[in-house]
Amino acid sequence: MGSTQARIAIDAMGGDYAPAEIVVGAIRAQAELGIQALLVGDPHPIEAILKQHNALDQLEIVPAESIVEMHEEPLGALRRKPKASINVAMDLVKKQQADAVVSAGHSGAAMAAALLRLGRLPGIDRPAIGAVLPTIMSKPVIVLDVGANVDCRPKFLEQFAVMGSAYSQYVLGIDNPQVGLLNIGEESSKGNELALRTYQLLQENSRISFIGNAEGRDVLSGRFDVVVCDGFAGNVLLKFAEAIGEVLLNIMREELPQGWRGRLGTALLKPNLRRLKQRIDHAEHGGGLLLGVDGICIIGHGSSQAPTVFNAVRLAKEAVDNRVLDRIRVQYQKTEATATDGE
Amino acid sequence: MGSTQARIAIDAMGGDYAPAEIVVGAIRAQAELGIQALLVGDPHPIEAILKQHNALDQLEIVPAESIVEMHEEPLGALRRKPKASINVAMDLVKKQQADAVVSAGHSGAAMAAALLRLGRLPGIDRPAIGAVLPTIMSKPVIVLDVGANVDCRPKFLEQFAVMGSAYSQYVLGIDNPQVGLLNIGEESSKGNELALRTYQLLQENSRISFIGNAEGRDVLSGRFDVVVCDGFAGNVLLKFAEAIGEVLLNIMREELPQGWRGRLGTALLKPNLRRLKQRIDHAEHGGGLLLGVDGICIIGHGSSQAPTVFNAVRLAKEAVDNRVLDRIRVQYQKTEATATDGE
Repeated sequence: MGSTQARIAIDAMGGDYAPAEIVVGAIRAQAELGIQALLVGDPHPIEAILKQHNALDQLEIVPAESIVEMHEEPLGALRRKPKASINVAMDLVKKQQADAVVSAGHSGAAMAAALLRLGRLPGIDRPAIGAVLPTIMSKPVIVLDVGANVDCRPKFLEQFAVMGSAYSQYVLGIDNPQVGLLNIGEESSKGNELALRTYQLLQENSRISFIGNAEGRDVLSGRFDVVVCDGFAGNVLLKFAEAIGEVLLNIMREELPQGWRGRLGTALLKPNLRRLKQRIDHAEHGGGLLLGVDGICIIGHGSSQAPTVFNAVRLAKEAVDNRVLDRIRVQYQKTEATATDGE
Repeated sequence: MGSTQARIAIDAMGGDYAPAEIVVGAIRAQAELGIQALLVGDPHPIEAILKQHNALDQLEIVPAESIVEMHEEPLGALRRKPKASINVAMDLVKKQQADAVVSAGHSGAAMAAALLRLGRLPGIDRPAIGAVLPTIMSKPVIVLDVGANVDCRPKFLEQFAVMGSAYSQYVLGIDNPQVGLLNIGEESSKGNELALRTYQLLQENSRISFIGNAEGRDVLSGRFDVVVCDGFAGNVLLKFAEAIGEVLLNIMREELPQGWRGRLGTALLKPNLRRLKQRIDHAEHGGGLLLGVDGICIIGHGSSQAPTVFNAVRLAKEAVDNRVLDRIRVQYQKTEATATDGE
């Protein structure tokens, strides 16, 4: 394996379907994405699953001794369990034995472990979780923060805008990303205190292309490439978006097969409906990118199954290949030389 | 016309499609809902539209001299224009010549006019806008606030919970409405400062059935009958929900007719797809209910066309018929006697 292959440390023990679905997703990712998967966790069950899939000896296993359980308070658990899989995975990045971490386990623990073991990037006060969503145009939008920081100060959102722009430009390949501030109206006079003060900062920041407020209805319009918000509003929005796909599929299942024409039409449309479901289904997305720590971390859904894990690994690979951390670092080297943005 | 008919004052001049679509919606509402519509606005264009639809002399016109334009600052405009249609409509309720107001005009102006002319209900610090959304169960959920108050204190949300419960029980007919607090996790320890402090108040309030936090994914699950949040998160959620229906319909238009099977299947499904579209389409909903002022006010979308106006009038009629204001008043008479909820 060449040294240019991204090495992705995958927390094999984290998530509702761990380790089986995590390992299966990792096998597929290594086979199809040209990455090197490092499975972090209890070797015995991992080996058993690899064996089942004729992949023993193909994927590397890095032993870990425990896991952070979903009900545990993250900081305490991370301290009590230095050899927990998420700690071991982060240490691989810290020691430059891996380029990125993927975890579908306790998301609070993953964030805390990243902060504690990898630290923040220079210029960043608070890391944010970015979620990449499809829009009605043929390009995605990155929304951040979707859950890392529930109470934000304006300068945090400003940093999210810079990090999101770097991600949009260098990973998603969008030229001159258009930044929006999630808000309740288009006018600059609209919004809560946080939005009003953030609007000013974004407008004055010359390193991003801020084009104004994005209302809820604008998020998926394609008019914005980056939408910034506090982690409370972002999390509500993301979880709502994920669920509404299921709601709409339910309505379709109820309405489409009604009557004989409906049953026949639905039968004829089966392949198209499957493609439609894939486009709507959140399982296809993969997870959020933790931006602002000194390492690439993908935080997946707790409910991740193999296809989601595969997509999470792809997200990680894209972030590694496009050197997103260096891109953010450069922004803040520039900042210190050319501007002093206060809050 | 009997005195039990609800008399609905309709701001004929407010909204992107005023007065034509407003008047057409009002004509249909009076014909089908057994209400008495009072069209408030400039008599000449209103009469012309009524004439076109052979409804002259059937609907009452209450003259108004001006309107609050969308770009105007509400308070100043309301003061400068005492005879603006929204002011005249509110005065009809104040003078008990109408039972409710429906407006698709400047929503800030409608709220301000309601507050200034009708005042608040006893016990209510801030009125909220409630939006009734369909869930995957066969019952709706009321989400409030969806935009009246962008920065909230915990006791405001507590009042929203009481008002939302009264609306759910007496207008939507839901027995013992289950109340949720919009939040980013299920556990009581999750959330921003506002959510953490509101959780306590809701838990201690014996006049509602608080069952815990509602995440974004739970809003449309049917598990909750009332979801409370600040007007910022609620507005973002509502506008996102409205837009995502359109996003889904776009994806369907792209995916379904692909291939000959797709074209045939889509043709066969035409009536079912139309029904599906109706269930998804926000135009069917009507508008938000302004709860907490001493009068029934429905605040419609600026983009309301006749079917939306019809639905808004129906919402108003249901609120009038079920005496929702009296139901809320009773809650706060009880409060003062039996409890002293601080913030």
